[in-house]
Formats: sequence, structure tokens, C-alpha cells
Amino acid sequence: MSTDERDIAELLADAPSNWGRWGDDDEVGALNYLTEEEVLRGVRAVEHGKTFTLGLPIGRPGGDPVWPGRSGADHYMELDKGHFEAGKVDVPGAAGLEYADDVVYMFLQGTTQFDALGHVWYDDRLYNGFDAGTTKGGMEYCSIEPMAEHGVVGRGVLLDVARHRGRDRLDRGERITLDELLDCADEQGVEIEKRDVPIIRTGWIELFYEEGADAFYGDEFAEPGITYSRDLVEWFHGMEIPAFGTDTVANEQTVSDETETILPLHGALLRDQGVAFNEINRLDELAADCDDDGKYDFLYVGAPLKIVGGTGSPVNPIAIK
Amino acid sequence: MSTDERDIAELLADAPSNWGRWGDDDEVGALNYLTEEEVLRGVRAVEHGKTFTLGLPIGRPGGDPVWPGRSGADHYMELDKGHFEAGKVDVPGAAGLEYADDVVYMFLQGTTQFDALGHVWYDDRLYNGFDAGTTKGGMEYCSIEPMAEHGVVGRGVLLDVARHRGRDRLDRGERITLDELLDCADEQGVEIEKRDVPIIRTGWIELFYEEGADAFYGDEFAEPGITYSRDLVEWFHGMEIPAFGTDTVANEQTVSDETETILPLHGALLRDQGVAFNEINRLDELAADCDDDGKYDFLYVGAPLKIVGGTGSPVNPIAIK
Amino acid sequence: MSTDERDIAELLADAPSNWGRWGDDDEVGALNYLTEEEVLRGVRAVEHGKTFTLGLPIGRPGGDPVWPGRSGADHYMELDKGHFEAGKVDVPGAAGLEYADDVVYMFLQGTTQFDALGHVWYDDRLYNGFDAGTTKGGMEYCSIEPMAEHGVVGRGVLLDVARHRGRDRLDRGERITLDELLDCADEQGVEIEKRDVPIIRTGWIELFYEEGADAFYGDEFAEPGITYSRDLVEWFHGMEIPAFGTDTVANEQTVSDETETILPLHGALLRDQGVAFNEINRLDELAADCDDDGKYDFLYVGAPLKIVGGTGSPVNPIAIK
Amino acid sequence: MSTDERDIAELLADAPSNWGRWGDDDEVGALNYLTEEEVLRGVRAVEHGKTFTLGLPIGRPGGDPVWPGRSGADHYMELDKGHFEAGKVDVPGAAGLEYADDVVYMFLQGTTQFDALGHVWYDDRLYNGFDAGTTKGGMEYCSIEPMAEHGVVGRGVLLDVARHRGRDRLDRGERITLDELLDCADEQGVEIEKRDVPIIRTGWIELFYEEGADAFYGDEFAEPGITYSRDLVEWFHGMEIPAFGTDTVANEQTVSDETETILPLHGALLRDQGVAFNEINRLDELAADCDDDGKYDFLYVGAPLKIVGGTGSPVNPIAIK
Repeated sequence: MSTDERDIAELLADAPSNWGRWGDDDEVGALNYLTEEEVLRGVRAVEHGKTFTLGLPIGRPGGDPVWPGRSGADHYMELDKGHFEAGKVDVPGAAGLEYADDVVYMFLQGTTQFDALGHVWYDDRLYNGFDAGTTKGGMEYCSIEPMAEHGVVGRGVLLDVARHRGRDRLDRGERITLDELLDCADEQGVEIEKRDVPIIRTGWIELFYEEGADAFYGDEFAEPGITYSRDLVEWFHGMEIPAFGTDTVANEQTVSDETETILPLHGALLRDQGVAFNEINRLDELAADCDDDGKYDFLYVGAPLKIVGGTGSPVNPIAIK
Repeated sequence: MSTDERDIAELLADAPSNWGRWGDDDEVGALNYLTEEEVLRGVRAVEHGKTFTLGLPIGRPGGDPVWPGRSGADHYMELDKGHFEAGKVDVPGAAGLEYADDVVYMFLQGTTQFDALGHVWYDDRLYNGFDAGTTKGGMEYCSIEPMAEHGVVGRGVLLDVARHRGRDRLDRGERITLDELLDCADEQGVEIEKRDVPIIRTGWIELFYEEGADAFYGDEFAEPGITYSRDLVEWFHGMEIPAFGTDTVANEQTVSDETETILPLHGALLRDQGVAFNEINRLDELAADCDDDGKYDFLYVGAPLKIVGGTGSPVNPIAIK
Repeated sequence: MSTDERDIAELLADAPSNWGRWGDDDEVGALNYLTEEEVLRGVRAVEHGKTFTLGLPIGRPGGDPVWPGRSGADHYMELDKGHFEAGKVDVPGAAGLEYADDVVYMFLQGTTQFDALGHVWYDDRLYNGFDAGTTKGGMEYCSIEPMAEHGVVGRGVLLDVARHRGRDRLDRGERITLDELLDCADEQGVEIEKRDVPIIRTGWIELFYEEGADAFYGDEFAEPGITYSRDLVEWFHGMEIPAFGTDTVANEQTVSDETETILPLHGALLRDQGVAFNEINRLDELAADCDDDGKYDFLYVGAPLKIVGGTGSPVNPIAIK
Repeated sequence: MSTDERDIAELLADAPSNWGRWGDDDEVGALNYLTEEEVLRGVRAVEHGKTFTLGLPIGRPGGDPVWPGRSGADHYMELDKGHFEAGKVDVPGAAGLEYADDVVYMFLQGTTQFDALGHVWYDDRLYNGFDAGTTKGGMEYCSIEPMAEHGVVGRGVLLDVARHRGRDRLDRGERITLDELLDCADEQGVEIEKRDVPIIRTGWIELFYEEGADAFYGDEFAEPGITYSRDLVEWFHGMEIPAFGTDTVANEQTVSDETETILPLHGALLRDQGVAFNEINRLDELAADCDDDGKYDFLYVGAPLKIVGGTGSPVNPIAIK
């Protein structure tokens, strides 16, 4: 620990919090902002009917980009045409029908995903005060299940920071400030409204696909992104942001310029405010289209899976313009 | 094989087909019907902003309902508070942040899911004529990946057959005819339009949750549902149905009353017409709401995961009324 | 809990223990008895050079017999001839060589196995006093690894209780007493010596293979076997038994006739004395041979795998007569 | 393919073969040499009762050495003290007993292992002529199961080539010739007898543990070892070698000096002669002891697991001196 490193609990001692705001048993946090009215506001953002799916391919032969220590998905055929050829299958009554079947073994956060609100904590307390001991053997509280039950539907707004900077992608470890986010929206001619779902494009994830794993991970994993600052977390709080997404693995600068610690926003936004993190999206097609027609808002639909006790879930978010 | 059993290839010899309709390399089939115009038609079905997520819980302690031979998801904590207590974790720079992480091992069709178009075939040909040998070691063609890339967004219509019959749920093995589907829509006061996504409710899946696995599987697995008839598959074809869903494991009567074989609609609709199957949904909340307000149509959003070579994918469909 | 059920800690309050006997950091317990001299004694038991492998088949299509709640092994081909036929493999420099490769997903105790000494505990203490909290996230102490490092090599003695009773197999839940074990040895004409490895045959496991899972598990899982009695655990202690095996899943009567609780010997022998449990062997061929030539002793070689932090390990013990 | 690369089928066209030697349905090959007499010969090699277990640790935090493309074992706790603390376990009748349980997900050849005879083939034929198509969906013939049923018990002889060269370990890609093996035995004062199990020590595997994965894998994976030459494969044939082991991942020079192709001995010995390959052993303790007492032979006991359809099996071989 560097001598300048600030303890996360101390750092966030008087930072904005949503604990208790929706009752002591609330497990979906800022998704509570996504009322029927906000869903309708999202729906009204649709003009053309164009759809964009933001999920990564899962289980590519060349590997998938993941947080160091995790691994990409392994996919196995439990049944395919080979089994039939080898005489290993008998399906009575199939009358000539044959089929393929398969299994996957994967980290729940090993691809495009939502974090459960309880995924990260400090001071032995998860979002809304649940005891961290309840994570033992599976998330008893603040798992992905209630978030998946709720769904994440609202108005999304793309903030294409890479294009705003005139670059293909941000560099390793670069920081994005709140001011830059707001400037970016301005330049794009889109207004970020209360309860919107910001989708921040850095271009970073494409490095993995274009230049490979070594270029992506480097000697030390260091993604670009927003990071903790008092004004930024207050802006999230005041704007009542229910969820946000990026095209990076962890949605924030890996080691914060400001705190010199890793991932402080997971403390300030996920654990304190209950903001939903939608990580590792592919945004290039959506961004090109927004650049083309000048329309940066859309209906955002995120539907993680209802994994009992899960710390997160794979998801394939859809943007409908 | 009973003597009355009809070979699937013979049965479907002159049944409607969409092979070649969208080119020789098409891998998404009837999802091609879901053009921007159809997306907008779906969006226009939204009135109140109410959302319903249709996915099953995954990895319940009591088990998940699956096709016999598959098993429910296994979920393991790779990291939880226990690891921290036992001194088994050191995250440099975390400054007090702790986290939980987990893996899942599951059948891709072991919960609410979309079938890939290549999941089932006969006569050694997948949808659109691809060689069944290309499934060996993973679906090279007609996997779930292009379908997930496309997304399934359109106007959904609930057909609550159970309520139409005045029953909690259909019985083991009962058949639903095309006429009954149309009567049900009539009685509900909703018109099924071309290119809609019908969601057929039988009430069947709740048997698993209410009475347990033994009651659900019985001595022989026999779900209720629609089945092959010439008029039904022609109706799907003429109506240009892109996808349909049910609250059963396989979306059709297990052993067909008509053909005495298993799952002939997987041949007639999935393999021949390229219709997307969205299986094993929970529909009771949505159905109760539709019964309440008399509105049976909605924006349907299905976003399977982009699993490379996958025969299907878990999904948590969302209905927005 | 029945009113007669006796708490395990109370039951074993003054039962024999080996804690501290081989130092405070000992993690292999009674395997310490297996000195070079005992290995030589085992070697001297070899006469004919006949070998018998005692492991179960793993991942049979019909399933494997396991403790309720566990499941049998799942086996998947990561590569086979089908992948080559489908053009999915390229091995530069192979010059015509092809190969198959595969993975397994299994419970470490889902087949013939050795329990780690830390697998079962009471009063928050593992064998030799290690804190049960050290099991969190993997066995830090008393895992299978040091036992596998040591190996289990000594003189084995078959005690064929089923044959002694003139039966194919013992019935559900039947008890075997210490006296019966000793009578059985007598009748067989073999002397159980200090530091021998007794292998007790009940015939029970064959029920699974002969009559299927339903017959084996029954309405309530209830294996036959030895159970806790004061004289029995003192006999194990006095005889310095390093390890013992059976052809049942748990090596003892499931619900003890004596204590009305489950598996008390796991407390008295594994946790208190550090005796190694070798469970779920197939003994019929060995037993038939012993019956045939009247020779019931052999060199016993058990070599569990060195699984880091494992609560146990699959094993294929070998008896050499 | 380099222009000098020789096709494996052409190379081995008239090489020694054991096909048909033990009948058309034989699936254990050269293990047939291990008769009772050979077992006794192995037993007679025991003098002191010292035992050495040769298996690698499985699932180390720092990773396990494997063939590129495979991965080390993943180990998860299905139950540990954390689950009890979190109130997630209830075992009726346990009376205070608690336990830990776990699963493993691993390549069957992802640690110390035996190859099944059908693991590698050419010309579409496995050992003894079985069709390579029978590997589809699981090894129908020449799987590890019959080899595990048989067991591998005989006289082992350590050939410490590293020490013979006065080195800690051989370098990347170095070749060992037959002459060197014989010189090494000579220098050690041990005679290699017919039907012995040679265990060849290169010191290579320790590179992984001492210097880490990067040093071990290098830019191109290139292990040292013996390789194909006509005299070597004839020596194996004439000596009736049932099995051999090494401390490398693949038991032979990765890219053959002689053929410029990869792993030709897997063709010449495993596929043609049915010789059992015991790969990735740790030999340093055994070798130090042999160097110490000058005794290089021992009873070798290898007991792979009876994995149905498996291409290989983890194993923890034991040498008893």
C-alpha cells in the first residue's frame, strides 16, 4: 500500500448513500428509480426501431477479455452429430429427429455482465447494511436475483468519450472526469436527464480483439475510465442514476488517479448508492450509428439472469433507437 | 417405435419451409421478420411502462425444471467473505474493499432459454441446409451467436390458454390446437397480427414449484402444448411468426397426439421455418396483469447470450406493457 | 432430532484421541503408523502377484453411487475425431497424428475415495485441533494433499462379512459389531495384526449396479456397516489402525443403532484418531479370490491425488496378493 | 509443415507393432506384459519399505504445468465452515457433526496422468485397429478404463539422465538418445530388465515450480526427452516395455530432432505398441534417495482412475524401495 493510499471507508465516510432510502430490506438499490414513468421515458426515446446488442461473444477460441484471475467461458458439447455417428445416442420416439446439447462452465462475471449490489463491499457491510458474512456460500442478500427480477429498463444515453477526444480508444489507465462527460454530452447535443442510464464509450475493449490479450493486459492491468471524485459521486446521487455501463471490464479507472487505490467507485456507487454496474459492453456499432444520425439516446434494456445467490450475471443488453 | 409413428422427414416432406428465403448463408431464420418496422410496432404496444421478467430462478436449492437428462445449474463461490476471514485473499491496493466472485456450471438449455436454430435437425441438415456434421465440437452454423447478435424485439401477445380453459394449468400431455389458440385470442379481445411473438401460457411449469419434481416429471415426462398439424405450421408460416414462447420446457406437446413421435414442431418450425423457440418462461405475473387490465400485447425483448457455437442460451425475456 | 440422539461432542468426550501424538502440526494422523517396517510387512503378504483394483467406474451412463446430494462425474470431450472431421482442429507439425482430450467435473468424493482428515469435524475443531474456520475456501489444514504425499501402503486384510453371514449382501441399515468382525477374521483363518488396513465387505455397493439407483437409495439412505461403540473405537485405537475401507459410501452404518445420529465414527475415528477412510470400493472380485484360495491378506496400496485444499480425493486402490 | 517433416504414417509404416498380439479386442496393450510373475519381480525389488509418491500437486494457487491449451484444475468448496456460519446448512441427525465438501473441474490430462491407449492415433486407427470414429463423444475403445481396471504394477527403474549429465535439469528441447539411457543405467549400476517400467528423469518439470510459468512455457513449448529413432522403438519392443514415465508433460521431445514433427513416439509406442505413458511425474525426492543409496529399482504402482470413456486419468504413482 502506497503511503498516499486512502482507506476506502475513511474516504467515503460522508459520501452520498442510499442505504435505507427504499426500506431496510431493499436489495435493488438505484434500480428503484426505474419506475413505470422512467420506462415510458425510455420507450419514448425510440424513433427508428434500430436495435443494437451490446454483449461480447462468449467462449471465443481466441479467449475473452476478463478481470485478471478470472478465465473465459469453457463450452462443451454434451451431444452433437458425432455422438449419433458413433451410435452413442438413442432417443425413443424421435422418428429421425436429432439434436445437439451443450454445457458451459464460466465465471458469472466472465463476460458482459451486471454486478450484483453485494458483489463489492467494505467495512463488513454490503449495500443497505447487510452483513458481509451473508455472502458465505452464496449471496443471501443483494445477489443478482432481485435485480434480474426487476430488470433494467430506461432511457440510455451514449457518451462517446473516445470520439469526443478524436481517438479510436483511450490509453491504458487514462482518467475521464465528470466535466469531460458533461462536455461530451454537450458536444453530442444530447441532454443527460435525471434517472438516465449513461453508457460511456472508451473504445478500450476493442484493444483485446484487435491486438490480442498481451496488448490488453499489459504488464499491469490498467483500464481507462471515470473514477472517484466527490463531485462525480454527488452528480450520480443528485441525478439519481440507476445504472451505468462502459466498454471496460470494471467500469472505472483500475487504479484511481485520485485515491491511488483500486476501483473506489465500486465502493462509492455500487455499495453506497446501490447503482447497477453493467460492465464489458461492445459499443462500436452503436457509437458509429449515433455519430451517423446524431441521436445518442435510446431505450436501454438490460436483463441479467436470475441466478440464485449470484454475485453477478452475464447479460446481452439491447439498445433500441 | 409404434407402428403408427411417422418418420419426421416423411411427415414434413412438403411442409412449409423458409430455407433459402434470406440467402444461403442465413443463420437467423424467421428473426429476419423482425425489421425496424416490427420493432416499432412492438414499441407502440407499450402503454403503462410496466415490466415483467419471464426468466426462471437459476440454481435453486430445490432444483430447476429441465428436460430429463439435463441437470440444473451448479453455482460455486470462488471468493466470499469466508475466504477473507480465513486469510486466503490479498488484493493489493484494495484499501479495504472486499468482494465476492463465483462460477456456474450449467446446461445452456438448463433454464429459460432460446434454442439455436441448429439445435434440432433431421435428414442430416440443419435449418437452411447446413450439414449436421458441422455441429461436431460446437455449432459452426446456426448457433445461438447470430441470433443473440440480432436480438428478439417485437410485439408480443400473451395467449393464456390455461385461463381460457378456466384452469390453473393444463394436465400432463394435453394438446392445444390452433383453433383453441385463435379462440383464446378472441376471448381475450386481442388480435394476433402478422410477425407477432405469441407467448402461450399453459400454467404447466408452476407444477414444479408448487408440487415438486416428482409431480412434474411423473413416470414419463409429458408436457402439454401445441403440436404438429398441417394447419398449425401453415399458420405459423403465413403469419410470419418470428419466435414464440411458452411456460413449458419444450414449447410443444412432448409426444404428439398427431404423429405419436416426440417434438415434431422442432422439426417443422425450428428446423424448417427457422422460428425461434423461447422455452421455459414463468408467465403467471404477466398473465395476472393481462387478466386484470385486459391488455394482452406488449413489447417483447429477448436477448440470449452470444455463446460461440452454443446450441442455445439462457435468457431472461422482458415484457413491457 | 430424536430425544435419544446424543450430541457427538458429549458422546466422544472421553473417547480415544490421537491429537498431539505426532506433533501439533501433524496432518496425516494414523497414517504415521505406516512406517517403513509396516510397508515391508505389507510387501511380505504378497505371494502370487495377483492384483485387484478396487475403484468404481466413474461417469457411467447409468450413474454412479454417491452420498445423497452429491452427483456422479460429468465427462466431456474437449476434442475427439468429430472435431477433426468438422475441420475444427489444426495442430501444426502433427504430421498426421490426431488425438482426443477431455475434461471432468466431479465431486472429489463422488466415487471411490479417501476422506481428508479435515473432511468432518465437531466442536469447531478438525483433527489435531485445527480451527474449522480454516476450511473456508479450501482446506488449509488436514486436506487430502499431505495424505496423498504420504500414500497409504501397508498390509490389508479383507473381512468378508457378507460371506461370513452366508449372504450376497447385508440389508439396508444393518449393523456390524466388533465381535462380528473378529469372528469373521477367525472363520477366515486370518489374523488381524496391529497396524493392518481392514477392508470390510458388506456387498452393499453392488445393489446399485444390480438393481439400480432406486433400490440403492430407497426412501431413506441407510447403509449397513460398523458403527460407534466404545469397544470398537478402543479397538481401532489399541490396534493402531491407520486406515480402513469398505464397499459402502460412508464406511459406517448411516444412522447409528447406538447413537441414533448419523455417521458418529467419522467423529470418533477420522476427527479424533486421524484414521484414514477409504470409501466406496468394489470388493467382489477380491473377495471371490480370497474365498477361493483362503488367503485374506495382501499388500494394500492407496494413492489419493494431491489436490490442494481438497476434502478428499478419488482413488483406485490396489490389492496385491 | 517444414519440407523435411515426415508424415507419421509413412514414418512408422514398418515400425514394430503389437496389434493383434493379445487378440482383436485387446484394449490394454503392453500392460499385458505385467503378468503375476512381473508383479512378483517388482515386489522383490523392495528392500527398505521407503515410499515415494510421484504425483504433482493439483490446483495450486500458482497454477499447474500442463500441455499448452489445457488448463490446471479448478477447485471449489461446495460446503465449508463458512456455509455453517452463514446458516446455510442443516443436516438432520448430525448431532454436532459438520463437514466440508468440494468439486473439481479439470482436464483428465491436466496433472500427473496416464494416457489412454486411444488418446493419440493416426491413419484413423487407434491402438489395435479400432476406428478413430469411436472416440466421438467419449472413447468407446482403448479408454483409460480397462487400463485402470488392470493397474500398472511391476519393477520400476529410475534413469536419472539429468544427474548422469551432472546437471540440475536438461535444457529446453534437448534430446535423450537410447545410448544415453543405457549408459545412464550402466553408470547407476542398475540393469534394465525385460518388462521393466523405466522412469526417466530430466529435471524439467521443476523449472515450472522454481522459475514459474513464463520460464517453463517460453516462446515455444519445447520439452527435452527421448524421441523416435528406429533403434529406440525396437528396443522398447524387444524389451517388452509395458509402460514408462518421465517428469515432462508429454514423455518425449516436443518437436523431434529426428522427424521434425511433434510427439512421434505417441504414434510409435502408444498407438502402435500399446505402451502406457505415465506423464508429468515429480521425481526429485526419489532421485535423491536413489543417488544416496545407489538403489535405482523399486516396486512401481500406478493406479489411474476408471473413468468411463476417458482419454486419460490423473494418477499418483507410488515407488516402493
